[in-house]
Amino acid sequence: MSESSINRPAGDAGIKKVVLAYSGGLDTSVILKWLQQTYNCEVVTFTADLGQGEELEPARRKAEQAGVKPEHIFIDDLREEFVKDYVFPMMRANATYEGLYLLGTSIARPLIAKRQIEIAKMVGADAVSHGATGKGNDQVRFELGYYALAPDIKVIAPWREWDLTSRTRLIEFAEQNQIMVTKDKRGESPFSTDANLLHTSSEGKVLEDPWEEVPDYVYSRTVNPEDAPDAPEYITIDFERGDGVALNGEACSPATLLAKLNELGRKHGIGRLDLVENRFVGMKSRGMYETPGGTIYHLAHRGIEQLTLDRGAAHLKDELAIKYAELVYNGFWFSPEREMLQAAVDYSQEKVSGTVRLKLYKGNVGVVGRKSPNSLYSEKVVTFEDDQGAYDQRDAAGFIKLNALRLRLLGRRDRI
Amino acid sequence: MSESSINRPAGDAGIKKVVLAYSGGLDTSVILKWLQQTYNCEVVTFTADLGQGEELEPARRKAEQAGVKPEHIFIDDLREEFVKDYVFPMMRANATYEGLYLLGTSIARPLIAKRQIEIAKMVGADAVSHGATGKGNDQVRFELGYYALAPDIKVIAPWREWDLTSRTRLIEFAEQNQIMVTKDKRGESPFSTDANLLHTSSEGKVLEDPWEEVPDYVYSRTVNPEDAPDAPEYITIDFERGDGVALNGEACSPATLLAKLNELGRKHGIGRLDLVENRFVGMKSRGMYETPGGTIYHLAHRGIEQLTLDRGAAHLKDELAIKYAELVYNGFWFSPEREMLQAAVDYSQEKVSGTVRLKLYKGNVGVVGRKSPNSLYSEKVVTFEDDQGAYDQRDAAGFIKLNALRLRLLGRRDRI
Amino acid sequence: MSESSINRPAGDAGIKKVVLAYSGGLDTSVILKWLQQTYNCEVVTFTADLGQGEELEPARRKAEQAGVKPEHIFIDDLREEFVKDYVFPMMRANATYEGLYLLGTSIARPLIAKRQIEIAKMVGADAVSHGATGKGNDQVRFELGYYALAPDIKVIAPWREWDLTSRTRLIEFAEQNQIMVTKDKRGESPFSTDANLLHTSSEGKVLEDPWEEVPDYVYSRTVNPEDAPDAPEYITIDFERGDGVALNGEACSPATLLAKLNELGRKHGIGRLDLVENRFVGMKSRGMYETPGGTIYHLAHRGIEQLTLDRGAAHLKDELAIKYAELVYNGFWFSPEREMLQAAVDYSQEKVSGTVRLKLYKGNVGVVGRKSPNSLYSEKVVTFEDDQGAYDQRDAAGFIKLNALRLRLLGRRDRI
Amino acid sequence: MSESSINRPAGDAGIKKVVLAYSGGLDTSVILKWLQQTYNCEVVTFTADLGQGEELEPARRKAEQAGVKPEHIFIDDLREEFVKDYVFPMMRANATYEGLYLLGTSIARPLIAKRQIEIAKMVGADAVSHGATGKGNDQVRFELGYYALAPDIKVIAPWREWDLTSRTRLIEFAEQNQIMVTKDKRGESPFSTDANLLHTSSEGKVLEDPWEEVPDYVYSRTVNPEDAPDAPEYITIDFERGDGVALNGEACSPATLLAKLNELGRKHGIGRLDLVENRFVGMKSRGMYETPGGTIYHLAHRGIEQLTLDRGAAHLKDELAIKYAELVYNGFWFSPEREMLQAAVDYSQEKVSGTVRLKLYKGNVGVVGRKSPNSLYSEKVVTFEDDQGAYDQRDAAGFIKLNALRLRLLGRRDRI
Repeated sequence: MSESSINRPAGDAGIKKVVLAYSGGLDTSVILKWLQQTYNCEVVTFTADLGQGEELEPARRKAEQAGVKPEHIFIDDLREEFVKDYVFPMMRANATYEGLYLLGTSIARPLIAKRQIEIAKMVGADAVSHGATGKGNDQVRFELGYYALAPDIKVIAPWREWDLTSRTRLIEFAEQNQIMVTKDKRGESPFSTDANLLHTSSEGKVLEDPWEEVPDYVYSRTVNPEDAPDAPEYITIDFERGDGVALNGEACSPATLLAKLNELGRKHGIGRLDLVENRFVGMKSRGMYETPGGTIYHLAHRGIEQLTLDRGAAHLKDELAIKYAELVYNGFWFSPEREMLQAAVDYSQEKVSGTVRLKLYKGNVGVVGRKSPNSLYSEKVVTFEDDQGAYDQRDAAGFIKLNALRLRLLGRRDRI
Repeated sequence: MSESSINRPAGDAGIKKVVLAYSGGLDTSVILKWLQQTYNCEVVTFTADLGQGEELEPARRKAEQAGVKPEHIFIDDLREEFVKDYVFPMMRANATYEGLYLLGTSIARPLIAKRQIEIAKMVGADAVSHGATGKGNDQVRFELGYYALAPDIKVIAPWREWDLTSRTRLIEFAEQNQIMVTKDKRGESPFSTDANLLHTSSEGKVLEDPWEEVPDYVYSRTVNPEDAPDAPEYITIDFERGDGVALNGEACSPATLLAKLNELGRKHGIGRLDLVENRFVGMKSRGMYETPGGTIYHLAHRGIEQLTLDRGAAHLKDELAIKYAELVYNGFWFSPEREMLQAAVDYSQEKVSGTVRLKLYKGNVGVVGRKSPNSLYSEKVVTFEDDQGAYDQRDAAGFIKLNALRLRLLGRRDRI
Repeated sequence: MSESSINRPAGDAGIKKVVLAYSGGLDTSVILKWLQQTYNCEVVTFTADLGQGEELEPARRKAEQAGVKPEHIFIDDLREEFVKDYVFPMMRANATYEGLYLLGTSIARPLIAKRQIEIAKMVGADAVSHGATGKGNDQVRFELGYYALAPDIKVIAPWREWDLTSRTRLIEFAEQNQIMVTKDKRGESPFSTDANLLHTSSEGKVLEDPWEEVPDYVYSRTVNPEDAPDAPEYITIDFERGDGVALNGEACSPATLLAKLNELGRKHGIGRLDLVENRFVGMKSRGMYETPGGTIYHLAHRGIEQLTLDRGAAHLKDELAIKYAELVYNGFWFSPEREMLQAAVDYSQEKVSGTVRLKLYKGNVGVVGRKSPNSLYSEKVVTFEDDQGAYDQRDAAGFIKLNALRLRLLGRRDRI
Repeated sequence: MSESSINRPAGDAGIKKVVLAYSGGLDTSVILKWLQQTYNCEVVTFTADLGQGEELEPARRKAEQAGVKPEHIFIDDLREEFVKDYVFPMMRANATYEGLYLLGTSIARPLIAKRQIEIAKMVGADAVSHGATGKGNDQVRFELGYYALAPDIKVIAPWREWDLTSRTRLIEFAEQNQIMVTKDKRGESPFSTDANLLHTSSEGKVLEDPWEEVPDYVYSRTVNPEDAPDAPEYITIDFERGDGVALNGEACSPATLLAKLNELGRKHGIGRLDLVENRFVGMKSRGMYETPGGTIYHLAHRGIEQLTLDRGAAHLKDELAIKYAELVYNGFWFSPEREMLQAAVDYSQEKVSGTVRLKLYKGNVGVVGRKSPNSLYSEKVVTFEDDQGAYDQRDAAGFIKLNALRLRLLGRRDRI
């Protein structure tokens, strides 16, 4: 394929086969049909189980009804890959966007994009398509992933191309094309959501006034802290080389661990976040995130790092985490700079092993204990008691003197 | 004074008058006496009210009993200055050390040092002294402050110099010198604390095993979340140019605002932190912090910034905050680089005005609403609904294409 | 004006008056005519003297011939404003893009954009236009400037819109419209240039193979070092608060200083750079830059900072300079984050005063001496000789011990 | 060995065997004797060939004469290890300290420290010693290396301990102890130097006034540019995965490549630097560095990166390089954070292969051409000519619009 096509606009005639990220819901069902009609091409559907908690088999049936060939219907359980190769590496970096957001939606997009491209190569498709809107970050995340992994793929983003811009028109189109519209889909949804094993996000409509509190009915992954158990619960998480490997002493796979933490987080009302954030596409948006297990895991990872990471490594990681989070949020997972940061982060995790004890209570999660065979914490050195020479306090005088030297020279110039 | 004296060791003969940071407690009372005996010099005591919640007049009486001249006893209420010129500027930067610690002890030290130096100049003292131990960060913070503001001052750090290294010897010395030792001071304190209007820290002894949960009796500034009210409480904080100016619509001074937030935080069990941190002097330590009002304020400030700060400013601030926090923690408040960061931060706060609404409940604090005359959030632009041209979705295609260009060139080289 | 128009595409009907950045050359003359024909609107020309070294009055005559009203022809000498408010602030930051490029083109664009917007407001224009191509950075720099200063302005970028995409068609259009085409413009120019008081850049065509050396005839601002004088020349530059104020002891205005340094740089063959750089729009390009005076000035500024800036300030500046340069290169001069960085940088320059001595010789420029009333360099402290107590070498032992402590704890864990 | 000894002061009684970094010169010969007398211990000498250009066998003879056992005399040629494992990794990071210094001295210290510790383990020594003064950075670099690699080693720093603080006393001691003092060592040396394959540094005495130009006789590694050949010389360097592997097409080992570049740099007067820098120990110092081959190599490496590194990787590297350089300068080579940065840097170098062509002329070195099988530069994409669709200029409009969006929202709030 020649270089000259690098910027041929997607949507051109000539598309023969397109792989669609397909949930089976109303919107992507409309897209499926619209692609078939508009591009007169074969559509391959790809439905991923990322732990969003929905039945996937209905998606197969609907795709079949829409005329997709059985061998062109892909339904993959990606939960373990998602947690092991995306969530955990990001958690090793302690990444949070704008100080608070644990990146639950952002981190799922590259995996979907990657799998779509794999399928495209497998079935010989020349295009991919997704159902993200033209105002959000997800279109960027999907498409940067596509282009990074398959530079010459064509990308179809229906929401930026079609004229089904109102709910009414969308439903009309559905009805004209024998797409079943359930009653609850007929009216406007009061907000839009995205869900996976790490989190559920909600935004739009009832959430659009940032002065208004998020209504109770928006929450779906956690009980209201006020309804959570009156007794706290203590748990332990074991880490090996920076990754969680066991809950309460019982070994579990990455996805199982996160799922179990989600159950605990749900029960205790942990991980709700009301945020006004800055999108990569330039505007502010207000969203609500529920990250029950991820919130617990994030804190636990920090807890084990406190004991096992040297200060130099820890502080460098804190600096890199800002940039890492921005890259993930903006959709640059498959970029050399994210991979460079990952190399640095992973290098630091060699000794990040041990056990963290946490207390869960009505929306609160806190580390209350941590231990490790690799602990760098030394009671001998730190104790207020006589330490029998483990640390010579007189060294502090010289340490301070030399740290002060430049300030003294400065003070002499400027303050006397 | 000549340059040649810049590194003459403190503790030399020749000291005539020393200003001591004096709390009136057992330790600094022993230091007072020890200074008089060891250096045969006049001691000036300085006792600051930083909101630690103790009576200060007993300190005057004790100083008098120790032979300090009345005109050499300084007792200053620094609460407003503390919050206005130290806590608030730091909060404008959203500084947290190692991701979690709100720097409650660190931020008080430079103010004490500054006032000590002012007094030293006033009374013509040639030295200053403090009661911080030789293993901690506070000695560094005090002394870097002293040296920055008075490059030629002599510094006496008794804990690094004397031989009263065990509790027994300290109490012996006290008894030999008519220093009253109350019963509770006779035995070993189970942990050591520092307190001011922003926080109380506790560390040492019973807290030294980082696997053991902090015992209940260590907490002094907050009720146990489990004992907090069963009903949530909603409050509002008003900000002007980055600083809090009113609580629930009622204007209050910086120190008053923080004090009221402390009361609210105490009541609802907010702001407890169990941390293993990396000290500047090179070892890890485990501490417990209670920052009730500060925790609420910090989140509220982030909340109003979400609405009023542009993304570019916000992300730059996030990067600078890491460095800012490290500088404050390490004692470099009076350094050109902290001041440069402050200049950048303060420049960004011009429009950070508005109101934040928060929900307090059993240890939780969360922003649930924010509004501002300077809001950059635009429902028109962000809405999922037809926005009548406020944002052209087709622009996103070009935006993605050019952001992807380098990844595509890279993908062509490396992935095909 | 209403929010709904924020993204109405430029180029719509309805444009009444447009301010064009007009050089008087063939390309912008064609644009002038094309705008009149395509938009049927009034064109206002703006020609800036930024020290590019061309006569500007011919531009007035040509604009008149094209039917522009005399009161709509703006020719402004912006040289002093350019150096004082754009070049010098950037030089205070020591900004270099990708380690080497002194940003000579980037820094001129925001000033042109700002003046265009001022004129647009003055004459009541509803649009602005520029002659930058659709592949380069300059379109971004111009338009980000326009939008930042006049969020609702319409922008016309002819090179992205018209069909005059080949040289032949452009010349045809010119001939059809009585635009004079001089002989040397008839053929293809062997490369394209941009010039102002800070630099001349050349790129395209003969420069497009990055393996081929830049041909001699491309250079226009400097003699070949091989043809420069055989004797070195020494000069001094005086700085006050971070800005150059005198050459060889003679006070001069910012633009005069830079012009004189340009003459010196030209004579000695200083400031040539052959670079492959990464454009903001995603591709690599190869260019040649000549920055004779700027290269000298940049080094001189570093020289005076070496003496007068504290280490903390200097190192923070080095970090900020990377980001600052990227912002200027990408066109974000009028952004809050660039302004925040400027606030930090400017804060640091208060004491950056003194004199730097430089040696110029056949392409080389080097600082050979610097002095300042604000020097932080102390021979007493640094000397290898006995310093009579100015520095106590024993302090170094404690300094090293505490800096080593964490490495020792780490070594014990990992290396024994 | 027990933790309690971690801060037992070096210099204690009880030292049995010490490994001394021994050059064979007057100073370390005095130290050798002083160690034997003061500590009554066995001294092991270690002399490294790092390319400093001195005969090492005389050091063996002198050590023998001083009573060192033959099996305790170590003379190692470390040139290849030095360049391959220290210089090249640092060059991969493009590290420069304070914008200009190529870290020639800093990078040699960790290797010496490492080899000393290896020998100490081999011979069962309990201490190490070096001849660095108490005011400089080298003591820190040596000792941080020692402590990192052997946390319980004892360190003897004679210049911080003894009373031979004047030249006269040192020579007296030498004469009393049958240490030969050559005539030129009898008087004061006019400056002090350090040399290795990467550079020679000179500082002290005649260089201490930063306003005075460095006298000609101080330079030893380069001819004066004015005396360099009148004809330029062109060379090529081949890189593989970020490291130089051939000069002018001829493969050579790391040390050989650097040695050959040194010859070229010497001949053409390349790599002189007059610098006032900020030492880690707190004061400013003025030095002169000659880095002939390293200066060429550094630029060449940047040249090949320009072609083969993606922008994201390149800009991240530029940020990391600042921190990397500071760590190397301050002596933290053997630290987790330097190793993390190295992991990130090395990850980026996988495709940094190709050929750089440079022009050397009278002090100037410039990249004039670069080519690579991994080039990311695409003439098709960048050309000003019609590119047959390789890049769609209309994409730029959307790119700019979305980048401008936040600035427009801001402009509406603040500028209208």
